[in-house]
Amino acid sequence: MKWVQPVAVTLRTMRTLSTLATCHGRNRRMLLRFAGFGLGAATLTTVVAQSSSDANVLNTPYYDVSNFMAEPVTPQETLVKNKDDMKVKMELLIMKIQHDFCRALENEEDPDTKFFVDRWTRSEGGGGVTCVIQNGKTFEKAGVNVSVVHGHLPADAVRQMKARGKDLTGKELPFFAAGISSVIHPSNPHIPTVHFNYRYFEVTRENGEKMWWFGGGTDLTPYYLVEEDVKHFHSTLKNACDTHDASYYPKFKKWCDDYFMVNHRNERRGVGGIFFDDFEKPSQKDCFEFVKSCAESVIPSYVPLVNKHKNDSFTSAERDWQLLRRGRYVEFNLVYDRGTKFGLYTPGARIESILMSLPVYAKWEYMHSPPTGTREAILTEVLKNPKDWL
Amino acid sequence: MKWVQPVAVTLRTMRTLSTLATCHGRNRRMLLRFAGFGLGAATLTTVVAQSSSDANVLNTPYYDVSNFMAEPVTPQETLVKNKDDMKVKMELLIMKIQHDFCRALENEEDPDTKFFVDRWTRSEGGGGVTCVIQNGKTFEKAGVNVSVVHGHLPADAVRQMKARGKDLTGKELPFFAAGISSVIHPSNPHIPTVHFNYRYFEVTRENGEKMWWFGGGTDLTPYYLVEEDVKHFHSTLKNACDTHDASYYPKFKKWCDDYFMVNHRNERRGVGGIFFDDFEKPSQKDCFEFVKSCAESVIPSYVPLVNKHKNDSFTSAERDWQLLRRGRYVEFNLVYDRGTKFGLYTPGARIESILMSLPVYAKWEYMHSPPTGTREAILTEVLKNPKDWL
Repeated sequence: MKWVQPVAVTLRTMRTLSTLATCHGRNRRMLLRFAGFGLGAATLTTVVAQSSSDANVLNTPYYDVSNFMAEPVTPQETLVKNKDDMKVKMELLIMKIQHDFCRALENEEDPDTKFFVDRWTRSEGGGGVTCVIQNGKTFEKAGVNVSVVHGHLPADAVRQMKARGKDLTGKELPFFAAGISSVIHPSNPHIPTVHFNYRYFEVTRENGEKMWWFGGGTDLTPYYLVEEDVKHFHSTLKNACDTHDASYYPKFKKWCDDYFMVNHRNERRGVGGIFFDDFEKPSQKDCFEFVKSCAESVIPSYVPLVNKHKNDSFTSAERDWQLLRRGRYVEFNLVYDRGTKFGLYTPGARIESILMSLPVYAKWEYMHSPPTGTREAILTEVLKNPKDWL
Repeated sequence: MKWVQPVAVTLRTMRTLSTLATCHGRNRRMLLRFAGFGLGAATLTTVVAQSSSDANVLNTPYYDVSNFMAEPVTPQETLVKNKDDMKVKMELLIMKIQHDFCRALENEEDPDTKFFVDRWTRSEGGGGVTCVIQNGKTFEKAGVNVSVVHGHLPADAVRQMKARGKDLTGKELPFFAAGISSVIHPSNPHIPTVHFNYRYFEVTRENGEKMWWFGGGTDLTPYYLVEEDVKHFHSTLKNACDTHDASYYPKFKKWCDDYFMVNHRNERRGVGGIFFDDFEKPSQKDCFEFVKSCAESVIPSYVPLVNKHKNDSFTSAERDWQLLRRGRYVEFNLVYDRGTKFGLYTPGARIESILMSLPVYAKWEYMHSPPTGTREAILTEVLKNPKDWL
């Protein structure tokens, strides 16, 4: 596993001011180049659990790194040794989801625009893989971030990540968190922005008791309302929910409307989706399977909307409206979002991965209010009074 | 005083999507037109305390409204009756400071770009006067806001406004707040952004005891470091402080460096200035005189820098850097600023006046870091390690 760290370091060193603007597949080529350096190319595509003492594992590739954007955060040996542990299952799931989503987005981009892959470590424990496209043709900013971190956390910080956090007291608590988080800000104002986040948490309470829970959600922020698109998005999420429990979609749809509320504007940031937290029933396995279904529904819920609208023509007034709405997105993320707050409170957090959710450009205008009857006003109305879409 | 409210309402009604972009003196003309409507033009320029029963007051103009951007928030009768009350003295001071600063900024603008004046009332008690230039030639966004509000506040909200807020408990506390707050985002990246805020607070504690204090400060956020400009700015503030107490400038300069800290970036938002809170000694009169000196030092500290740089040429890379720094400004205001938080917590707060501090445009780039030795890196270094400028 030693070769991974030098790659990340070298990529970071070679990056200069603003070079992230359209990466033109450079990063993928570099990964290959560095993988070749002193290793042998086979290592890159299939990692075999060479260092395990278990003969079965030795002969069976445990995971195929070509299904990931980079090496997982946790060393291979640890993954193999603990393959039935939820921490490992979650890490491998989110690595795979990251890869599949990034490749699906790249399919909607210029052929020479690829995700820039930044694998990083956290000195307090763990690390992550951040994938970014900036100033692409289809995506003005697309960020897909995996983080797998552990250590000790101020109870304050842990509470930020949990809806019902009151049962967590104490000075510092041992924790583990694995999550995928993504925000896609397309260039064209007729393509909605999407956000999703799926995470698994373990915390040891002061009395030694271990707690675990899942959280997550997927939500859509259109700039212009196209009802059939919103219906497609919601029905895809509903299908993912319904295979587990028919009560999930209505409950988590409402939770989403309530959570993504910009209180000081009295409006939601978008047309919702699903959101849940403190998810720990009926069993750990069931919870994981549900989260897996949700995460796997991101591509079919969203990518068809990108494909449908990426060549729509738009006016500069429509671009302007998109930027104003992105200002509201920034307001939500910096003022209310629990994930962002969690990041800002976490010692040694990687701020660039947390604030990757912010758009390239945002705009604020004093007393901006779209005239009645315009498409901008129709969207605003839905943000103030969320609807049942299905 | 009845005519004021219709003017504000009518202005608001006549405003349409994006019409704030460069007001071309329209607002001033409208004020005159509406003042003429059913009143007589003399009323506009000099308000005589006609309704007071005090003969002396009747014969002496109590204040000259031509020195203000609009009628004060508090009815004239109340101002006259309580003219020795600190609430009244503070309101008249900040109205005058608002006017003088707006006119000084207009002098640096295109002759037909004037402040848009929005006088508003707050249903819970009080109101304000918001003055804005948007998309001017010199000022991309200039906001100068006066608010004079009273009512009951959750103790949480009051604590947000006070550095040492721990002595305030209870469910809701009667309060009064009068303040001026301004952020100027110039178009040219060679002109720094300035912010100032001076405020007076009264709160009645649960035990009936009345508390009062002043707070405020002025701070500079350049995009490029010009040492002589920063020295001019700081020395003007120091002179204002020194006429009151030689210990004030060093103490409040450090407080400013500490307060305007973007923790998650480990950098200040600018090159500082002065900042103080809970200011209540040696006497109310002395405190007021100090605040007055500080507020009066804003124009000489800042406007010469505008004049010096407003015609500087700049590149698109310099504009880009300005937008990235404005992104950091947004981060500070939405994540840390006590004034903004106070606003977001206050029931019935006028959100447009609070978030007027945000720039028209802001930008975020993943992992942006200026190369060593560039002017952008030199500024960043000073933001990480604040200096003594004098």
